[in-house]
Amino acid sequence: MTLVATTSAVWSGDEIRSADREYVIHSWSKQSGPNAKLISGAKGSWFWDSEGKRYLDFQSQLVNMNLGHQHPRLVAAIKEQADRLCYVGPGFAESSRAKLAAKLAQITPGDLTMSFFTTGGAAGNENAVRLARHVTGRQKIVARYRSYHGATAGAMSLTGDPRRWAAEPAVPGVVRMFDPYTYRCPAGHPDPCPVCTGGPHLEEILQYENPYEVAAVILEPVTGTNGLIYPGEGYLQSIRDVCDKYGILLIFDEVMAGFGRTGELFACDHWGVVPDILVTAKGLNSGYVPLGAVTVSASISDWLRNNKFWGGLTYAGHPLACASGLASLEIMEDEGVVANARLQGERLDAGLRRLEQTHSSIGEIRGRGLFYGLELVVDRRSRRPLTPFNAVGDAALPMSRLVKAAMERGLFLSANNSIVRLTPPLVITADEIDHALGILDDVLTIADSYYEG
Amino acid sequence: MTLVATTSAVWSGDEIRSADREYVIHSWSKQSGPNAKLISGAKGSWFWDSEGKRYLDFQSQLVNMNLGHQHPRLVAAIKEQADRLCYVGPGFAESSRAKLAAKLAQITPGDLTMSFFTTGGAAGNENAVRLARHVTGRQKIVARYRSYHGATAGAMSLTGDPRRWAAEPAVPGVVRMFDPYTYRCPAGHPDPCPVCTGGPHLEEILQYENPYEVAAVILEPVTGTNGLIYPGEGYLQSIRDVCDKYGILLIFDEVMAGFGRTGELFACDHWGVVPDILVTAKGLNSGYVPLGAVTVSASISDWLRNNKFWGGLTYAGHPLACASGLASLEIMEDEGVVANARLQGERLDAGLRRLEQTHSSIGEIRGRGLFYGLELVVDRRSRRPLTPFNAVGDAALPMSRLVKAAMERGLFLSANNSIVRLTPPLVITADEIDHALGILDDVLTIADSYYEG
Ligand SMILES: Cc1ncc(COP(=O)(O)O)c(C=O)c1O
Ligand SMILES: Cc1ncc(COP(=O)(O)O)c(C=O)c1O
Repeated sequence: MTLVATTSAVWSGDEIRSADREYVIHSWSKQSGPNAKLISGAKGSWFWDSEGKRYLDFQSQLVNMNLGHQHPRLVAAIKEQADRLCYVGPGFAESSRAKLAAKLAQITPGDLTMSFFTTGGAAGNENAVRLARHVTGRQKIVARYRSYHGATAGAMSLTGDPRRWAAEPAVPGVVRMFDPYTYRCPAGHPDPCPVCTGGPHLEEILQYENPYEVAAVILEPVTGTNGLIYPGEGYLQSIRDVCDKYGILLIFDEVMAGFGRTGELFACDHWGVVPDILVTAKGLNSGYVPLGAVTVSASISDWLRNNKFWGGLTYAGHPLACASGLASLEIMEDEGVVANARLQGERLDAGLRRLEQTHSSIGEIRGRGLFYGLELVVDRRSRRPLTPFNAVGDAALPMSRLVKAAMERGLFLSANNSIVRLTPPLVITADEIDHALGILDDVLTIADSYYEG
Repeated sequence: MTLVATTSAVWSGDEIRSADREYVIHSWSKQSGPNAKLISGAKGSWFWDSEGKRYLDFQSQLVNMNLGHQHPRLVAAIKEQADRLCYVGPGFAESSRAKLAAKLAQITPGDLTMSFFTTGGAAGNENAVRLARHVTGRQKIVARYRSYHGATAGAMSLTGDPRRWAAEPAVPGVVRMFDPYTYRCPAGHPDPCPVCTGGPHLEEILQYENPYEVAAVILEPVTGTNGLIYPGEGYLQSIRDVCDKYGILLIFDEVMAGFGRTGELFACDHWGVVPDILVTAKGLNSGYVPLGAVTVSASISDWLRNNKFWGGLTYAGHPLACASGLASLEIMEDEGVVANARLQGERLDAGLRRLEQTHSSIGEIRGRGLFYGLELVVDRRSRRPLTPFNAVGDAALPMSRLVKAAMERGLFLSANNSIVRLTPPLVITADEIDHALGILDDVLTIADSYYEG
């Protein structure tokens, strides 16, 4: 490396890509893959690479850019706070931090009151679980299999996703329950299904675990990365009821589903169920500055007035991050972002239902708002998935070919197992939805070509 | 709360403080304490509260603001990147991220090459340790008692500080070694002391643990929060030698000590010892945007080209954060910041040696650069500490009175156990050092009043 790396040095695309390949460790991958695409700009629902090729961001990056890229008002709020006060320690009071906390108390459901601010989702879940243990004086935590809660040791122990295997042995005390994955119900989905209706399944587990040793149940009200799994009517309430029966705290991880993604401000609002602790990040400020939040009920807030909160991080309540969160929530209100998610979600849904008629590989369409998943199969009757669970290499090829073909056509989307995720920015337009549907219509023929049914 | 929380709403100081008290959870504390001080602005080595009272920041907040508050060039770099591209996912190449990684490869010691970027220190240590386990195929980690590595479950398991107690049971596999705390050497400090010289003590532990089951030794080359402990000559090299003998990786946590704090760019540069993995945060960008880095040796980089890196976070390699890191390193070079840390450190040292003559409570002065600790005692001969280890309530009063008195006189400093930490911004001036020494001269009489020797 003979180049000098400075802010003002102008490097060619090749030079940046070469430095990236030589010096940057990228997440969840071997560092010898093909050069990462060099992104040179972005605006709204689009971003473009150094060759000027434009992509419609149907993934919102890591499902965080709810307000899209480079929203002018959000950028302005960051610059304004940068001029005023980038940072002050978590022990002080600071205007943007206090306002954001007050705002969250207002807009979060039920009696959720006080917030602890982190720099992302993993640390949020870490703090939620530790706090639940302290409040209850109990140790065990019930978490689900089809879940992702973050990559620090505690959050990874909660995670069911196979990425957990690389972080084991895990933190002790996590007990596993199944998911309301009705499309492939582990109970064979009799009616009423004890797993998919939640409460009976949880009760069964608690009977073996001792309910009075369980501090909390943590779950994504709508499962994100692990498959866009929506619970049936009554599921969340039945979990809430069982928790209440035994004094177990209920933690909702809405890191991905929160802030309008599902067409309601919070995913749990669809069912009117309120957790004791709500963990958020991503859509809270669209990720323009790293930020997460742990918001707790009035009774936990009271507990915290008399007991020490045993958590902290240097960047807890970071002023620049909090300012961007506050501005983001204002923009959502002023621009009717949740309503747009609902409206465009309906358009997306209708379009996908049309595609379902001609693409036999679509096994199920699951979604609300702009939080959609397409379950792809090689046989609609047996529901055999297009790629097996946790497939790698050749076995994963049908899905990776589809995602790559979409990228070539300028549509950025993601997939996990046999599920294609459709999660565009919530500010997307009808034309952009139609544009994406056109490309999907094209690339789904790749999945269809594997069809055996 | 009837106030509406918006970016533009003007709240009075009382309103902000009241929202802070009602809605913000502060780190490591009961939420019922006195109102947190409301900070309304900051510049260089100073910040001020809503009453206009100014404080000389002899703590650099949480020892992160190495460049001081609101450095104009750093603020400008953040605003520039905000205008260009606030965020793009970790899977892409991006200019500021690639440049910062290239820059770190250049300035970090030895053959440290590739970097993974996090949002702070805890996640850095989490990823360092997980990676060490994968690279070696071993599970155990040796960590020290007087240490702080962060508050997520994995980082907390490494931490020796009593805050760990609130996060136990810990992640399995952490083995504890003692610190080179010569002032209170656990081996009674014979000469040569097996603990304080490192290698022999580590060898003793490995003999019982099986050296071939140990993945890594992690330590702060200079201990920060837990007492400004500087290792003797040869300590780090002896640890390095034992690690090499058994194929154990050496991880240096320079989250607090890195980037000029000790008067060298990295603390380990004082002794010319290079780790296999270097973890940094704080001074990397002075915390203006949450950022941390894990930088690994050439051989681990090679390993990563053929093996998957099992880590990730939504805000890994965050462009806004990386841009601030890059600008920060440039400023350090252009403004001779490390040299100033050395120069002002000498002035501080000389001043403290003068205070030592008149203040019998000063048991030991430890420091280099601007990373100083005063060990306070009630008896210089017995070295009995001013406050017992992990004291709370009344037992902690002598220290808390001193810190509070300094704050009243406009000097912001911190203390842990019986050690006062002196860690001002590295851009501090001679006048400001003298100003702080004057206040210290005054408030040390509080500690002296407890003297029994
Ligand atoms: C539901 C959920 N929880 C937690 C996380 C972890 O968040 P972060 O990557 O910010 O640590 C994610 C990230 O994808 C997530 O989707
Ligand atoms: C040496 C050391 N390591 C790790 C950390 C944790 O960093 P963070 O608070 O950014 O998670 C700290 C924080 O004080 C530290 O001093």
